[in-house]
Amino acid sequence: MNYRLLSKLLGLIANLVGGTMVFSLPWAFLEGDWSMPRERDGFLGLVAAIAVCLIVGSILRRLGRDAEGQLFRKEAMAVVGLSWVLATVLGGLPFWFSATLRAPDVRMSLVDSMFESQSGFSTTGATVLSELQDPEMVPRCILFWRSSTHYLGGLGIIVLFVAILGQGSAGKALMRAEMPGPSHSTPQARMQHTAWVLFLIYTGLNGVMALALCLQRIPLFDSLCHAFGAIATGGFSTYNASVGHFTTDPNLNGAMIEMTIVVFMILAGTNFMLLYWVLIRQFGRLFGDLEWRTYAAIIVVATAVVLAAGLAHGDFDQYGTSDIAVDGGRAEGSEDYPVFRGLRYSLFQVVSIMTTTGFCTDEFEKWNSLSVGLLLTLMFIGGCAGSTGGGIKVIRHILFVKVLRLEIEQAFHPRVVRPLRIGGEPVEDQSLRKSILVYFSLVLLIFVASWLFTLAVEPDSTWTASGHDVEHKLIDSASCVAATLNNVGPGLGVVGARQNYGGFGVPSKLLFIWLMMLGRLEIFVIVVLFVPSFWRSQ
Amino acid sequence: MNYRLLSKLLGLIANLVGGTMVFSLPWAFLEGDWSMPRERDGFLGLVAAIAVCLIVGSILRRLGRDAEGQLFRKEAMAVVGLSWVLATVLGGLPFWFSATLRAPDVRMSLVDSMFESQSGFSTTGATVLSELQDPEMVPRCILFWRSSTHYLGGLGIIVLFVAILGQGSAGKALMRAEMPGPSHSTPQARMQHTAWVLFLIYTGLNGVMALALCLQRIPLFDSLCHAFGAIATGGFSTYNASVGHFTTDPNLNGAMIEMTIVVFMILAGTNFMLLYWVLIRQFGRLFGDLEWRTYAAIIVVATAVVLAAGLAHGDFDQYGTSDIAVDGGRAEGSEDYPVFRGLRYSLFQVVSIMTTTGFCTDEFEKWNSLSVGLLLTLMFIGGCAGSTGGGIKVIRHILFVKVLRLEIEQAFHPRVVRPLRIGGEPVEDQSLRKSILVYFSLVLLIFVASWLFTLAVEPDSTWTASGHDVEHKLIDSASCVAATLNNVGPGLGVVGARQNYGGFGVPSKLLFIWLMMLGRLEIFVIVVLFVPSFWRSQ
Repeated sequence: MNYRLLSKLLGLIANLVGGTMVFSLPWAFLEGDWSMPRERDGFLGLVAAIAVCLIVGSILRRLGRDAEGQLFRKEAMAVVGLSWVLATVLGGLPFWFSATLRAPDVRMSLVDSMFESQSGFSTTGATVLSELQDPEMVPRCILFWRSSTHYLGGLGIIVLFVAILGQGSAGKALMRAEMPGPSHSTPQARMQHTAWVLFLIYTGLNGVMALALCLQRIPLFDSLCHAFGAIATGGFSTYNASVGHFTTDPNLNGAMIEMTIVVFMILAGTNFMLLYWVLIRQFGRLFGDLEWRTYAAIIVVATAVVLAAGLAHGDFDQYGTSDIAVDGGRAEGSEDYPVFRGLRYSLFQVVSIMTTTGFCTDEFEKWNSLSVGLLLTLMFIGGCAGSTGGGIKVIRHILFVKVLRLEIEQAFHPRVVRPLRIGGEPVEDQSLRKSILVYFSLVLLIFVASWLFTLAVEPDSTWTASGHDVEHKLIDSASCVAATLNNVGPGLGVVGARQNYGGFGVPSKLLFIWLMMLGRLEIFVIVVLFVPSFWRSQ
Repeated sequence: MNYRLLSKLLGLIANLVGGTMVFSLPWAFLEGDWSMPRERDGFLGLVAAIAVCLIVGSILRRLGRDAEGQLFRKEAMAVVGLSWVLATVLGGLPFWFSATLRAPDVRMSLVDSMFESQSGFSTTGATVLSELQDPEMVPRCILFWRSSTHYLGGLGIIVLFVAILGQGSAGKALMRAEMPGPSHSTPQARMQHTAWVLFLIYTGLNGVMALALCLQRIPLFDSLCHAFGAIATGGFSTYNASVGHFTTDPNLNGAMIEMTIVVFMILAGTNFMLLYWVLIRQFGRLFGDLEWRTYAAIIVVATAVVLAAGLAHGDFDQYGTSDIAVDGGRAEGSEDYPVFRGLRYSLFQVVSIMTTTGFCTDEFEKWNSLSVGLLLTLMFIGGCAGSTGGGIKVIRHILFVKVLRLEIEQAFHPRVVRPLRIGGEPVEDQSLRKSILVYFSLVLLIFVASWLFTLAVEPDSTWTASGHDVEHKLIDSASCVAATLNNVGPGLGVVGARQNYGGFGVPSKLLFIWLMMLGRLEIFVIVVLFVPSFWRSQ
């Protein structure tokens, strides 16, 4: 293991995190009220955290000052895993230093801060904060930093996965799209070029979306935060009612805003390589891509099912079923029919859950059980490979079904061996079949073990204290694990659309932090960090 | 496909089913009251069903009268799958012909009859009958036939799996124990010898258990039925309160009876090959077997967890928490301490669920959520390979964990290939790794798809009509799928210990029939029957 190189790269990450924090400082004046002691606490907390980042960064870079050599597979895995851990710890410091109030009279502990930070970087959007809108509780500059972690996390995933983990034959099979870049160049140069292109597309999308929201009369602060939340498929909002808030403001067109966010969430769940081809006007690549077509088809079908089941069960009959919806008056008069209201809610929630963003416009956990069950299942599907979306990814599901079909055939025709194909092209590599099955198996194992762990360590009082039915502990706990492992955010009941993770005990929170990281880095990178022989051997 | 041979073998199965029905006839006089019209209906229904079996049997045998040739892999799969289907249809006829009352004023439909029959043959023990104890509703001879299906189903599994599916290298890895039989004999002769040995052990266990229950003053009828239920890990009882009934009879020692049943359930979940070695006094083989040691260890650990969690939550504080327990007075005075009562209930329920028997002594679904979650997980573990237990089987779980550990190691050491070992012995066969992963993947896929299907087709009124909370539909439906796919029987809530599957709609019942068969025949045999190319090709 090349520890010097490792140290140098981690030092750069620390500086990057600290540097990004600087952009949160001005919001203490622009959006916050500097005369409030809490806002000043937030500002000072950020400053202290920036100092720590820079100090840690320079120490690490100094330790690795003579670093030489190359990143091999093992080093790459170690860099990705450890930089995630480091970013989480450093990124949580502003919350901890400023001791933002989690809920009335509850200051954020170190674990709470790490939870919020991990949730941000892993683009999960699960929160422990209950009173986002109250500047007496959460300083505006801290709120901006919270959303900025989404931006950084999404960027990390886009660049890292494509540049490092998208290599190799299995990676190619998952990503498929060739890398853009000048032909006749070295792989190294192509990789750098690709990373830049992706950085620009990602940042550009954030900018365009923030502009689109601003044009709909949403303040710049909120526009930026919701853009960071959507393009990174994160889901941190600046309102307690999440995106549902905009409907309650009579000056805004809630339906239009929601549809804007839907479009950008769909783009964020698309392979960014495909977005590159679209940008250079090769639209055929997008519509010809098997993964993207499946992704779009799932969204359409799931929306139809949720809409139909919801209409049959009266889920959209009245605004009054959800306290999000009755927060205030409604501006639009165009939605007197449940079918339109239903389509709007269904589409938003399906896209938000499927892309693992986690924005909410209604308390979907109170819908009929088919819709809820389907949304829980969509959490495990997630976005496309090479997007910021979490979950298992659409392409893995496609391959999973294909592999199982081939295996069933082999059960009675042991001598017939057919290759695995995607869109007609054979993609084998023999190891791919096994690695797909291993991935699903690991998700299954981690899911069940985490579910039992949550049931064991989380006392019933977490439910009773927040007025929830302890009889729902089994399904609520399963939803917590699904929502954190797949980087979605909200789950059912005690962690539903209007609820948060604040009431959980420390062991569960530590588990969820671990699950968010595990899910975001696609399991292997994190699991191997805990295998002793990973560090020992050559 | 050798259709003649297929037809001949199916004819034999039809005759076997009809022949076994004959043994149910005398109970109309011995246990039932011949003067009751319902009992006479049952008797006539059985006679009619026997006639149909013999007619179908002779037609099928006539069609296959010149059958020649051998059973190849494909024919063997077809025989196993189709004979299961045939036995289910024929075995359901007595219920349908006698129109046994499912509940007051509800006669059994064809689908109900098939459900009960499949549940019996697949040794599941899920029932649609709600008033077992009332001879005005369920004739005694029909009740005996119901339990006999467990005996036949268990026998089928023991003989079929060892003799047919236990062959081949993957089968050997799962079964491990060599076949007993005269050395220097042909494989064919060894296989026949093995089948006889297993038949004798299985039937002997049924006899010994029935005797043990008789000695504890349980009537012969009940003793036989509960022996069939336990040794086949089925779980049909003759009482509404399942095994919990015996505690309510002041003339019986409920605790002793329960512990007797526990011992036999543990034996029934053990590889029958190992029981053979124990019978010829080679005890070391049992205790040296990795699968059996793991199986025993899981029972001990799970009992300890359920006991501890139950004591902490007061699940065993009073008999009054369950209406099973307050059905009548209790004979024993030795159980005034919750810890003893708890140990008794925990051990019984853990063994009953883990071996996929499904007998109940308490309404375990009302225990704390950790215990319930753990019991749900145990359903998927099941018994040992080569036992009558259902579920995924202990050995597959052992291999699953080992395969995943090796795969994680390979993620950072791609060039190091280590063999898979069981108890020190390498068991590779390269295809074994993949086939284990495929098995878990199929279970996962079937589970999720069936859960969504149940949510979609089963109306909320199934819950509200039986006084259950429709908010539990998500978890209850998941438990139905788990309980039928793993051949357990009882689930949670609407299908809990004191409930039954009678209230479900026809589509759900058809799904559950299919799942029971799928689980019992370890998926592949049934899935391939639905692949067109299975029938078309050579």
